[in-house]
Amino acid sequence: MTIYNFSAGPAVLPQKVLETAQSELLNYRGSGMSVMELSHRSSLFDEIICSAESLLRDLMKIPNNYKVLFLQGGASLQFSMVPLNLAQGKKALYVDTGSWSKKAITAAKAIPKVNVEIIASSQDKNYSYIPELPQTVDQEAAYVHITTNNTIEGTAYTTIPNFGKVPIVADMSSNILANDYQVTDFGLIYAGAQKNIGPAGLTVVIIREDLLNQEAIFAPMLDYTLQVKNNSMYNTPPTYSIYIAQLVFEWLKEQGGIDSILKQNKEKAAVLYDAIEKSALFESPVRQDSRSLTNIPFITGTAELDKAFNQAAVAEGFQNLKGHRSVGGMRASLYNAFPLEGVKALVTLMDKFESEHGGK
Amino acid sequence: MTIYNFSAGPAVLPQKVLETAQSELLNYRGSGMSVMELSHRSSLFDEIICSAESLLRDLMKIPNNYKVLFLQGGASLQFSMVPLNLAQGKKALYVDTGSWSKKAITAAKAIPKVNVEIIASSQDKNYSYIPELPQTVDQEAAYVHITTNNTIEGTAYTTIPNFGKVPIVADMSSNILANDYQVTDFGLIYAGAQKNIGPAGLTVVIIREDLLNQEAIFAPMLDYTLQVKNNSMYNTPPTYSIYIAQLVFEWLKEQGGIDSILKQNKEKAAVLYDAIEKSALFESPVRQDSRSLTNIPFITGTAELDKAFNQAAVAEGFQNLKGHRSVGGMRASLYNAFPLEGVKALVTLMDKFESEHGGK
Repeated sequence: MTIYNFSAGPAVLPQKVLETAQSELLNYRGSGMSVMELSHRSSLFDEIICSAESLLRDLMKIPNNYKVLFLQGGASLQFSMVPLNLAQGKKALYVDTGSWSKKAITAAKAIPKVNVEIIASSQDKNYSYIPELPQTVDQEAAYVHITTNNTIEGTAYTTIPNFGKVPIVADMSSNILANDYQVTDFGLIYAGAQKNIGPAGLTVVIIREDLLNQEAIFAPMLDYTLQVKNNSMYNTPPTYSIYIAQLVFEWLKEQGGIDSILKQNKEKAAVLYDAIEKSALFESPVRQDSRSLTNIPFITGTAELDKAFNQAAVAEGFQNLKGHRSVGGMRASLYNAFPLEGVKALVTLMDKFESEHGGK
Repeated sequence: MTIYNFSAGPAVLPQKVLETAQSELLNYRGSGMSVMELSHRSSLFDEIICSAESLLRDLMKIPNNYKVLFLQGGASLQFSMVPLNLAQGKKALYVDTGSWSKKAITAAKAIPKVNVEIIASSQDKNYSYIPELPQTVDQEAAYVHITTNNTIEGTAYTTIPNFGKVPIVADMSSNILANDYQVTDFGLIYAGAQKNIGPAGLTVVIIREDLLNQEAIFAPMLDYTLQVKNNSMYNTPPTYSIYIAQLVFEWLKEQGGIDSILKQNKEKAAVLYDAIEKSALFESPVRQDSRSLTNIPFITGTAELDKAFNQAAVAEGFQNLKGHRSVGGMRASLYNAFPLEGVKALVTLMDKFESEHGGK
C-alpha cells in the first residue's frame, strides 16, 4: 500500500533527500564518518552550513543586507526572542489569525517593557479568514507581526502589508519556500524547519541587518546579534538537521526553485479545493480569498462522518489527515514534498465516501 | 584506511546505531515513513520518546521523583535556564573549572535578581585540576553548580560534593552515561547530546521535582515546569535526535549498561594515560587525581612538535585529535562509542613519533 503522509509537521520529505541521506549515513563523502559525527568546526561541516545558507539565499533571493541564522527552539522560542530583541521599550503590533499568532501574542505580552497591541483579528469568525489590516500604524512601533500561513486554520496571506518604516515580522513556518513572498517585504522572517525545510529541531531566521539588537540580551542563546557574529555557531548547532535542510534546498533547486514549486503547489491545492467545491458533503471552513495552499482543512458537518472518513482514510494508507485536535475535521497538509498523486488519491476516496454516505 | 574520530563533539556514534538508522531511514518499522517524517503526536513517535526516557531512567537509575526532559538549545541555553528557573532572588554558587563553567557563570551573572558567587576555582593553575571545595556553603543558596567533566581542560570530578540541603546542579555534557555518578547526588543534571547521547540539537535535563519553578518563566520555552507538564512537547521536539538517542540508549544497555561501559572507558583511558606517563616526549597537563576518562589532552611541550604530531595523526586517519583552539596541543575524546583499538592505534603512532623525534 502506498503511504501518503498528510502530516502538518514534522512532514513528508522528498524521497530523493531521504535516499541521499541513507546512502551517506555511514560514510559522508568518503570521510569514514556520518554527518552526525562531524565536528561542527570541521571543514566538512563548514561546507554543509555554507552551502545550506547559499542555497537558501538563492532560492528565496535573500539580499546581502539580510542575515541568515540556523537556530534551535522552534517558532515557539522565536515568539519570545522577537520581542526581546526588537521591541524593548517599544510598541509591538500583532495580527491575530489563530492558534499560533495567539501564542506569539501571549509570549510577547510576557516580555517586560514591551507594549503589545493587536491591530486586527479574525477571531469573530473562528479565524476562517485573513482580516483586513488598518491602512496605517503607529510609525514608532517596533514591528507588525503576522503569521503568513495558519497551519491549523488553513488561512494564508496572499499579499504582504506595507506599513512604511515599521517592519513586518513574519512567522513563516508553514509556507516558507512554498510561496513567492519577497524577502524585502519583511524585516524578519522565522520558520520552524519541520514543514518545508527539514527535520524538527532547526529554526531558520532571516533578519535585516538594521534590526539587529544593539544591546546584548541577557541570555546569549537568545541574542540575534551574538548569533550573527558567530555564524549560528555560538554553540554546537543542530548539525544533522542543517545537513538535511541543505539536501532539501538542493532538491528544491533541481525542481526549478520557488516559481516551479509554487506552480505545483497551486495545482495540488486546486485539485483538492475543486473537489471540495463540487462536493455536496465536504466543505471548506475557510473564506475563499484566504485559503492556504499548504494546509487545507475540510469538514463534513458532522463529527460522526468526520470520524468515519478519517477511519476510511487511514485504511487507504493516508496518514495524519485528521484535523488538529483543537478544530477537528480533516486537514490535508500539502507541503512541497507532497506528491500530486496523493492529492488525487485523496479526492478519489472523498468521491467514493460521498457516494456511499450521501450529501448532507 | 580505518578512520578514528577523536572529536570532542559532535562525536563518534556506535556503528550499530548508525546501521539501524540507515536501514530504517526510508521506512520506519513498516510505516512507509522516515522517523524524520513522523508527526510528534503520532503513536509511533510516542513510543520512541517514551522508550528513550524509560531506557535512560533504567541506565542512570533515575528515581521517580526526578523528571526527564528532552529539550533544545544545548548546554549553553541551560546556562541561562538554570538560574532563571532556580535562583530568582537567591544566591547561586558556582565552581569555576574552565571554559564551560566560565560561560555558565557569565550567563548566570546576566540574569537579573540572581546573586552569583564563585566558591572555588582552579584558574590559578590554568584549570589543570579540580579544586578543593569548601566544607560548607550558605544553606540559603539556590544551588551549587559544577561541571562534572571539563571537555577542553580534560578534568573530571571523581566524587560529587554534598552540601546538605543545597542541591548540586551539574553540566554533565561530556561524561553523562560514561561515569557511575548517582543521580540522587544531584538536584539537576543537564547535558548536550552530541557526545555520549546522540546528534547535536538535543539537550537532556534531569530535574528533581521539588526544584521545579513555582512561578511561570516569561518565555514558555525556558520554563522547566511548563516543559514537564507537556512531556517535552510544548512544541515540536527534535524528533530525529530523540530517535537516535533512543538507539544509543538501547546499544548501551546491550553493552551491559553503565558499569560495563565505565570499565571499558577506564581501560581505554588507562592505555593512553600509561603511554603518556611512560613517554619522554608527551605529557599530560592535568594533575593526576583530576584526570578525565572521556577527554584526554596531551602535549609535547613545543608548538612545532604538536603541529607535526597532529599532521602525522591526520595522515594515519585520526580525525579531530587537535586540541581545542583555546589550549592547543592534542586531545583524544574517548566517549562510549570510541573503540579501544583506536586508542591502541594512537599509542602506536605516539611511540613511532617519539622514536623519530626523540625526547624533549
